[in-house]
Amino acid sequence: MSTPEGRTLVLGAYLSYGTGHHAAAWRHPDAVADGAQNIGHYVDLARTAERGLFDFMFLSDTPSVFNDDQGGYGSRVVVFEPMTLLSALAMETTHLGLVATASTTYKEPYNVAREFASLDLLSGGRAGWNLVTSSKSDAAYNFGLEAHPAHPDRYRRAAEFFEVVTGLWDSWDDDALLRDKERGVFYDPAARHVLGHEGAHFRVRGELNISRPPQGHPLMVQAGSSEDGRELAARTAEVVFTAQPERAAARAFSQDLKRRLPAYDRPHDDILVMPGLCPFIGATDEEAQEKFAELQRLIHPGLGVAMLSDLVGGFDLSEHDVDGPLPALPPSNGNQSRRRLIEKLAAEGLTIRQLYERMTVARGHLVVVGSYRRVAETMAEWLASGAADGFNIMPPYLPGSLTEFVDHVVPELQKLGVYKESYRAGTLREKLGLPRPPSRYAAASQKGNG
Amino acid sequence: MSTPEGRTLVLGAYLSYGTGHHAAAWRHPDAVADGAQNIGHYVDLARTAERGLFDFMFLSDTPSVFNDDQGGYGSRVVVFEPMTLLSALAMETTHLGLVATASTTYKEPYNVAREFASLDLLSGGRAGWNLVTSSKSDAAYNFGLEAHPAHPDRYRRAAEFFEVVTGLWDSWDDDALLRDKERGVFYDPAARHVLGHEGAHFRVRGELNISRPPQGHPLMVQAGSSEDGRELAARTAEVVFTAQPERAAARAFSQDLKRRLPAYDRPHDDILVMPGLCPFIGATDEEAQEKFAELQRLIHPGLGVAMLSDLVGGFDLSEHDVDGPLPALPPSNGNQSRRRLIEKLAAEGLTIRQLYERMTVARGHLVVVGSYRRVAETMAEWLASGAADGFNIMPPYLPGSLTEFVDHVVPELQKLGVYKESYRAGTLREKLGLPRPPSRYAAASQKGNG
Repeated sequence: MSTPEGRTLVLGAYLSYGTGHHAAAWRHPDAVADGAQNIGHYVDLARTAERGLFDFMFLSDTPSVFNDDQGGYGSRVVVFEPMTLLSALAMETTHLGLVATASTTYKEPYNVAREFASLDLLSGGRAGWNLVTSSKSDAAYNFGLEAHPAHPDRYRRAAEFFEVVTGLWDSWDDDALLRDKERGVFYDPAARHVLGHEGAHFRVRGELNISRPPQGHPLMVQAGSSEDGRELAARTAEVVFTAQPERAAARAFSQDLKRRLPAYDRPHDDILVMPGLCPFIGATDEEAQEKFAELQRLIHPGLGVAMLSDLVGGFDLSEHDVDGPLPALPPSNGNQSRRRLIEKLAAEGLTIRQLYERMTVARGHLVVVGSYRRVAETMAEWLASGAADGFNIMPPYLPGSLTEFVDHVVPELQKLGVYKESYRAGTLREKLGLPRPPSRYAAASQKGNG
Repeated sequence: MSTPEGRTLVLGAYLSYGTGHHAAAWRHPDAVADGAQNIGHYVDLARTAERGLFDFMFLSDTPSVFNDDQGGYGSRVVVFEPMTLLSALAMETTHLGLVATASTTYKEPYNVAREFASLDLLSGGRAGWNLVTSSKSDAAYNFGLEAHPAHPDRYRRAAEFFEVVTGLWDSWDDDALLRDKERGVFYDPAARHVLGHEGAHFRVRGELNISRPPQGHPLMVQAGSSEDGRELAARTAEVVFTAQPERAAARAFSQDLKRRLPAYDRPHDDILVMPGLCPFIGATDEEAQEKFAELQRLIHPGLGVAMLSDLVGGFDLSEHDVDGPLPALPPSNGNQSRRRLIEKLAAEGLTIRQLYERMTVARGHLVVVGSYRRVAETMAEWLASGAADGFNIMPPYLPGSLTEFVDHVVPELQKLGVYKESYRAGTLREKLGLPRPPSRYAAASQKGNG
């Protein structure tokens, strides 16, 4: 990474769901309503992101239906599988990084290692893995489990999973494949390594049946914010996604995370913190406010009430007047801070409709409603104050919000001197200024013990 | 399928390994030596196959290193992961079917269902799944098992796996997604179905988080030839790959398989039998023989002896003179018929070198060395006699052997009237004349019990 003075924002295009991040995105007159399963639409999005010099696009994932509701109003129920989609998009882009979520709870490390190595290879070194333990209990029922594994168990498994996958990526030294036609020698037998992992959760012999990825290891991304999640990120992640609606709290989060790095022999600035940002934008603040209100009006009450019911802890609010007050609710064992916030707003007089409009916009991420210039300035301020190294941009609806961001906010960022004018050459790691991890076997042999 | 008189050959391009099927393929002067991991090379291959009107390309797979040898002479050690590669190639082709192997022993049904549905969707209905139980015991060690599961266990698991995957593909009715912007209704709640599978090997609730694939179900392929394998194929497969070096035996295999279909309520001709065919071709028989001999000479003795050692049951022959006789060997519990064939040839006086040259050409598949016309005539004869509905073409080296086949054998097949002149419109199923499977829920409701 460059010096603080010359630092520029890293940008991700968070393109899950296909129609956009707003709950009513698909109903927008210009939205591609079948966007979540429309490959032509995704090709257009990826190319637009590349035109805007985005460092990568990102697809979150859960191996279960994203159950916004059961009434037919939610649009996030069907999506492409991320690795197949990103592999297709690799052929339609040149510079854009391709980052996907894969679960350490519901996949096998050998398969995950292969898939990301293959994506890295066919994209010329542009793959990234967002390592998650999966937080949705619905997924457990699709994989033979009675219940979602407990949080600490998931994190212990994730840490071991990471060791196995990175070990498998090192199966073949970078120069293992000689392909010497004359001598008939395809590879150097001394340059292949059996992992032989035997741990609490996995026994994996290896080797991996694909060469070392162009990036050495694909870019490592994480999004955990719990204590366990922060420690795993400090140990393993190079990019961290986070939901931070307030700049001061974001700065504290970033500082906390970076303070943890030296314990893992990592320099303080060896990690990029990227809050999500959902920008409602227009030429003026007024235009942006109008566009925001237009989308808010499109939230079907059936969906809004179902989402609010989920947010307060799973209590069905559908029998209550949507323009009346929130009823008194029994205690919940769900997210307590969010529940307190909702009850505080209800006490201030917000109706059920007003509550779901307020709470469902961006699932706890930063929302900015304002002119192109205002959004760019906010982003620059977060960068300057150490609250963010970049942002994962969450377009409210697609393709319009992404196109508008690229056409109007990106030039403002460039005018402010906080965004690149062109792509750097090389792999995703090289573009981000991150080092290429040496093979564990190369490192061992340098230390004289391998 | 059309009438016997008008029947035409179905062709697959079996493009695993990237450099070709011959053991020394990568050493050929024109071979792309890094072909197994070269995306540009694979794009060229897929486009060449499409120019030759191939119905599909096929990638076999095993989740472990394909250990031809340990000396550095074998080229099949590193390959792309098939689903990522086929997803990329979907963007570079229009008509070509995309068929990959996925193991029922080492993957989860929810993940397999998603991946093939996603490939089917992004390719416009061109995906096919070669369901295998995995026969290489090396894979077990990459997935935490002490040993490869026993054959009958693998087949019982495979049959249940198939039920789960096809059930998940039916999660959403074909017309479930309404996307009615005006009313705010994205899907019909009555058209989503929880699978709720609870079996001996799997408990999978569902629904799948992707819509019903364009083909209803991706094309189902199998390659089992054991009694268990034939029964599973008769129950579930629409295309069957098989290694058949002799026409009479191939015809008997095909008839045996087709006789099993009525027991599963399937018409006798509802399955396409496709032997592998490794064609060494030239303008004349002499030219073909020369090209065959050229490749044979390129087999490194280190590789040839290692492969023969494996074929006789895992006895190391590397200490013996490669141009001397096969030594007497202790009994093996490996493949007995292959072992008897090798010992018979050795008794006839073949040296170790001559034995590996004979035995490693195409792993038991049909090999034809001859002129373009001769190869085309052989294929037409197999079709006419009921020994084959088509062939899975195994090019000896790449890209040369595939290009030559498309440029010279395909026109001969067309002259013989046994090959199409252009692609039919529609999905892979429609091109092959196979029916689109109705949803199990649609069928149930038609019978009045759903």
